[in-house]
Parts: sequence; structure tokens; C-alpha cells
Amino acid sequence: MRKYKIAVIPGDGIGVDVINEGLKILETAKELHGGFDFEYTHLPWGCEYYKKTGRMMPEDGLRILKDHEAIYLGAVGFPGVPDHVSLWGLLLPIRKEFDEYINLRPIKLLKGIQGPLRKGPEDIDFVVVRENVEGEYSGVGGLAYQGTASEIALQTNVFTRFGTERVMRYAFELARKRKKKLISATKSNALNYSMVFWDRVFNEVAKDYQDVQTQVMHVDALSGYFILHPERIDVVVASNLFGDILTDLGSAMQGSIGIAPGANINPERKYPSMFEPVHGSAPDVAGKGIANPIGAIWAASMMLDFLGVPEAAKLIFDAMEAVTEEGKYLTVDLGGNSTTQEVGEAIRNKMRELV
Amino acid sequence: MRKYKIAVIPGDGIGVDVINEGLKILETAKELHGGFDFEYTHLPWGCEYYKKTGRMMPEDGLRILKDHEAIYLGAVGFPGVPDHVSLWGLLLPIRKEFDEYINLRPIKLLKGIQGPLRKGPEDIDFVVVRENVEGEYSGVGGLAYQGTASEIALQTNVFTRFGTERVMRYAFELARKRKKKLISATKSNALNYSMVFWDRVFNEVAKDYQDVQTQVMHVDALSGYFILHPERIDVVVASNLFGDILTDLGSAMQGSIGIAPGANINPERKYPSMFEPVHGSAPDVAGKGIANPIGAIWAASMMLDFLGVPEAAKLIFDAMEAVTEEGKYLTVDLGGNSTTQEVGEAIRNKMRELV
Ligand SMILES: CC(C)[C@H](C(=O)O)[C@@H](O)C(=O)O
Ligand SMILES: CC(C)[C@H](C(=O)O)[C@@H](O)C(=O)O
Repeated sequence: MRKYKIAVIPGDGIGVDVINEGLKILETAKELHGGFDFEYTHLPWGCEYYKKTGRMMPEDGLRILKDHEAIYLGAVGFPGVPDHVSLWGLLLPIRKEFDEYINLRPIKLLKGIQGPLRKGPEDIDFVVVRENVEGEYSGVGGLAYQGTASEIALQTNVFTRFGTERVMRYAFELARKRKKKLISATKSNALNYSMVFWDRVFNEVAKDYQDVQTQVMHVDALSGYFILHPERIDVVVASNLFGDILTDLGSAMQGSIGIAPGANINPERKYPSMFEPVHGSAPDVAGKGIANPIGAIWAASMMLDFLGVPEAAKLIFDAMEAVTEEGKYLTVDLGGNSTTQEVGEAIRNKMRELV
Repeated sequence: MRKYKIAVIPGDGIGVDVINEGLKILETAKELHGGFDFEYTHLPWGCEYYKKTGRMMPEDGLRILKDHEAIYLGAVGFPGVPDHVSLWGLLLPIRKEFDEYINLRPIKLLKGIQGPLRKGPEDIDFVVVRENVEGEYSGVGGLAYQGTASEIALQTNVFTRFGTERVMRYAFELARKRKKKLISATKSNALNYSMVFWDRVFNEVAKDYQDVQTQVMHVDALSGYFILHPERIDVVVASNLFGDILTDLGSAMQGSIGIAPGANINPERKYPSMFEPVHGSAPDVAGKGIANPIGAIWAASMMLDFLGVPEAAKLIFDAMEAVTEEGKYLTVDLGGNSTTQEVGEAIRNKMRELV
């Protein structure tokens, strides 16, 4: 029997609630599908840990994680710990050190959910491939004349040929498996080095994928395109920051930020990949038991797909969508009044029905 | 009689069509309102000019412009001239050299227009104050190992204390005149120098405006908030790039990119301010006479307001909205079949009715 080693980091706030439900879903998938098992390492890292130890994770945290095939993460961040501390102490180093250079985010309106757009589920179904380790998030920068009226802050975007090319190739390969349409998000009309470079690499890589229809759009126009013509979009490739903005916009198009999942992938499987809901720790909602578990559950489904049990992944996804389509068990962000646990339970029952 | 000196740069593509209508509207406003006159300088600058001369505007272009109170611009850009050439040769130097550090963009769904969101005109009515001369658009950067597999592109965002503080003060003052609610768009959880600095300046400036209710939101979450809860937004202050993305998203929320106007303002009036539709030159649509003139006409209204004839500005705006509300004269982007000229004429007729 195949045994998958999973590191579980619920993190902060609602991260704990939703990962709890996600784990129960994984157990049900294992039970119903058979043929695989999990070995979990539960890691209570995050802002609570930080308050006690002054670190978001132990000094050898990455070494501990490295010994797993996947990381299942809730959310990180809590009042009192500045965001750039909590994230540069846990989420971002995992993405970078484990070379999880692909951030894969499906934007798909589930049946039964009324999103903010007039368009329906048949119109909203695409994927954003986000560069996940360099670009605007390189962390390079500094301050001059600190604290004076002449103060200057510099932040440098670092785009490498290597890093740019590989995310584009991944996106082209994915487009080939879908409708063979790829949009590159640029801003070369204003970012005269980074994005001019980005466009040049895109045009070169495109030569190897003549069967894929390409389009280059400025990120500003593209964000408008998302809400005006989502039905025309198949795959989007974007830099770290642009992908970040576009996918949060996309997750709102799904009706609630609570629904969207993200996979942080190291395609070579040299290091663990990480699966997480896109939403944050939402301290205002934490502990009330009303957070939407769907983002975390969908992320669990993506994890199973990545690990090599696509049928089990599909069972979770189908059950999830059957529950939203019925509309009986929805959390408050979707206009319902079910608890986190009730939604999780409804999805598990549906899995038993559908199997 | 007060005479306003206006430099008119229709630019490329549909810029020519829409500025034409805008000028006719300005004439009607002058005629109906009385008490002021225009002295126009028509400048045929842009990509055609570039093809002939190798420059987007003459060497002394800025000197020529400087002698005006306002610039009325269509759109710049055309196939065959790379965007970063056309824009760094005309639009961006005007913004920068004339210290038009405020880019003011109203996001307002006009009556009668069905936007892509389920929300209506009563829900979508806010303003984005975008920093317009520095930040991500500073043009600082470079390439290393050019053309090799080790190539690196660097692009540096430059945020000054001076530039950051003044755009925030402008936004706070504007919020005071509206509903006293201001959202700052940040991304300090990832951009660990520029946006951490941005937040610090915001918090300091906020102390001088205790009567304004403030909120700090990451730009990714904020873009989702735009489409989920626009009715909660009053004024947004954003950096150059974030403002660019958020306002194109906002203009799509208005039903079409063709509707949105932008004012590039030098509040000290030391240099000319520039008024333009947010849309681009749309080469695919150019010359067909079907471009939406509303963005350009709304920009003309903002120009009159800035010049000091708010009643004339309001007359244009009210006529414009009366025409969209009636819904008889709409261009194809709004689901109608009227030409650019027909929409312009309908608005002029309405001005005569309303005056
Ligand atoms: C929390 C933050 C640093 C992170 C990001 O910007 O990548 C988040 O928004 C995301 O999209 O996963
Ligand atoms: C054309 C481009 C350089 C410009 C910008 O990014 O500022 C445009 O998108 C705008 O918003 O006015």
C-alpha cells in the first residue's frame, strides 16, 4: 500500500478550523478509495508559536518538512505579528526553499453558487499559473535617509531567464492539455525592463508551442477582461505579483475568497509541494466555526491529484460541487448559515453517496 | 471673458475619433454656459508622427505644452511601435515632467448601463487616487548577462517620502469632501521594503486626519473587494501600478473600458494637467466610427471642473448620464449600435435640453 507523508500546518486563525475539515475529508477519501494511506506530521507552527519562541517555525523547520511529499497548510498571520514577519518566517521561505515555482490556481465557479458577476458556472472555468519564487517577491531592496523627509524606499523585482522560462513552459504544457489558449499577463508598456524581458522570453518559448494560441495582455486590461469576458480565458501565465492579484480577483469571481485553492508545486518533485486555501487567517472570524472549508477541501483534492490518486481527487471535487449545487449546506460567506463542520460533513456524506 | 489654453493631442487609433466628439461637446458647453472661451493648440503627435520623425513628439514638445493650462489627450499606441517606446516617448514624460502626481479616476456605474456585476449604479460610486509619477513606473532597472541563459532583468520601484506623502494627503482631503472613508492599497506582506514604507507613511499621515476612517488592504484582497463589496468603498489611494490595475478593473465594472475617464493633475497648477479617457488606442476598432466617446467626454467634463467651471462640467456629466439612462444611443461595447458621432450628438442635444 502506497503511504504518503504529509506535513500538516494548520497555522493561524481559521486555518485551524478548515484544515480540520480537510483532514477528515482526506480520511474519507482513503477509506472509500482504498490502496493508499497517509502518514501525518502535525506541526503547530505560526503566530502562536512565534509569540512563544520568536520564530514562526523552528530553526530546522525546513529540514523537518523536507522529509515529506506534501505540505497541507491552513493560513498564516495574526494581529500583533506584522504580516511581513509572519509570512517571511513561514509561507514564503517554504515556497522559495522548496523551489515551488508553480502556483496553480483554478478559477472555477461551482454550480449552485451565485457569484458577483452576472455570468454563470459555464462561463468561469480557467487556470492561472503564477510564478511563485522570484520576480516582485525577491525580497531585494532597501531604505535610504531613513526617518527623514528625504527617505527613499527601493524594491527590486528580479526576473531570471531560467525562472521566467520554466513557468512559461509549464503554462504552455498545461494549455496543451486544455483548450490550447494561453494569455501572458504583462505590463511592458510601463515596466520597461522586467516586463519587456518577460515578453521577449514568452515570444521565444511560444515558438516551441505553435499549436497553442497565445495572447499578450497588460495586467490592467487583463483584470478588466477577467470580469467582462471570463468565458474567453483558458490558461493565464503571470508573474508572482500579477498572479497574486489576478487570482484573488478570480477567487472573488467564485463567489467568496473562502472557496479558492492553491497548489504550490515543485514539478520535479525534488522537494515537497504545498497545498493551501487562497484565503488568509481571517482573525475576525476565527474560532466562530463559520469559516468556509471549501478552499481547504479543494486544496486537499488538488493534493491527492498531485500525489497520484486522481480518482480520489475527483471524488472530493464532485462531492463538493454536488453540495454547493444542492445549496442546503453553505457557510455565511455564501449566504447560508451552516457551520464549517456541517459543510465538511455534508461533503463527506456526498462522497459516500457518489463513490 | 476667461480664455483657457488647451493643448489637444488626439494621438492614435480611436483617440482621434473620441477627442473629436469631446471637442464638439466642449464647444456646446461654452455656447450654453457662456463666460469662457478656449484657445486650442492642435498637436498631431503620436505613432504616425513617430514613423515620420523617429520621435513621438518634437524635441521641444514639452516646452510647447507647458504654455497651456490643460492637455486633452486621446490615446497613444499603434502596432509596429512597441508600447514602451510610444508611451515613454509621450504619455509618461508628460505625466512626470509636469509633475502630474495625482491620477484621479472616478469609478461610477452610469444609470441605464448594465455592468458585469450584479450590483447597480447605487452600489458603484467611488474614486481611486493613483500616484502618477514614481513608484513602480520610475523606469529604473537593467539587464545582466543579456541574451544568455543566465540573463537577469531588474526593475526597481522607487518610493520617496515626499511623493508618497503628498498623494496620501490629497486622498485624505478628497475623502473629507466625500464620505470620509479611505482605503490604502498595500502589499506589505510581500513587498518588504516599498510597501512596508508605504504603510508607515500612511499611518503617519492618518494622524492628521482623525476624522477620516481608514482601512489598509492588500491589493490582491482589495481587487476581490472591488467586485464583492463596491458599495463599501469611498476613496482608495494606491501606488502607480496598483492604481493602474485597480482602475482598469474599476472601469470594467462600469460596463466598458470605453467609459472611464482619468485626470492627471498637478494640484499646484505649476504645470498643465492632462485629461484623457482610460482606454487605449484600440487599433482593431480604429477608423470604424464605433468607439465609445463617453470616456473622452467624461474626461472633458473633469477638465472643465478643474479649470473652474463646475456648472459646465456638471451639465456635460448630467447629459451623458441622461443619454445612457435612456439607452437609445449606445455604442457596440455597451450592447447598442450607435456610432461614435451619434452618441456625441445625443449628448449635445441633451445638454441643450437640460441647460
Ligand atoms: C500572504 C501573501 C504573502 C500571499 C502572497 O502574496 O503570495 C497570499 O496573498 C497568497 O496569494 O498566497
Ligand atoms: C498606457 C499605460 C502606460 C498607462 C499606464 O499604465 O499608466 C495606462 O494603462 C493608464 O492607465 O493610463
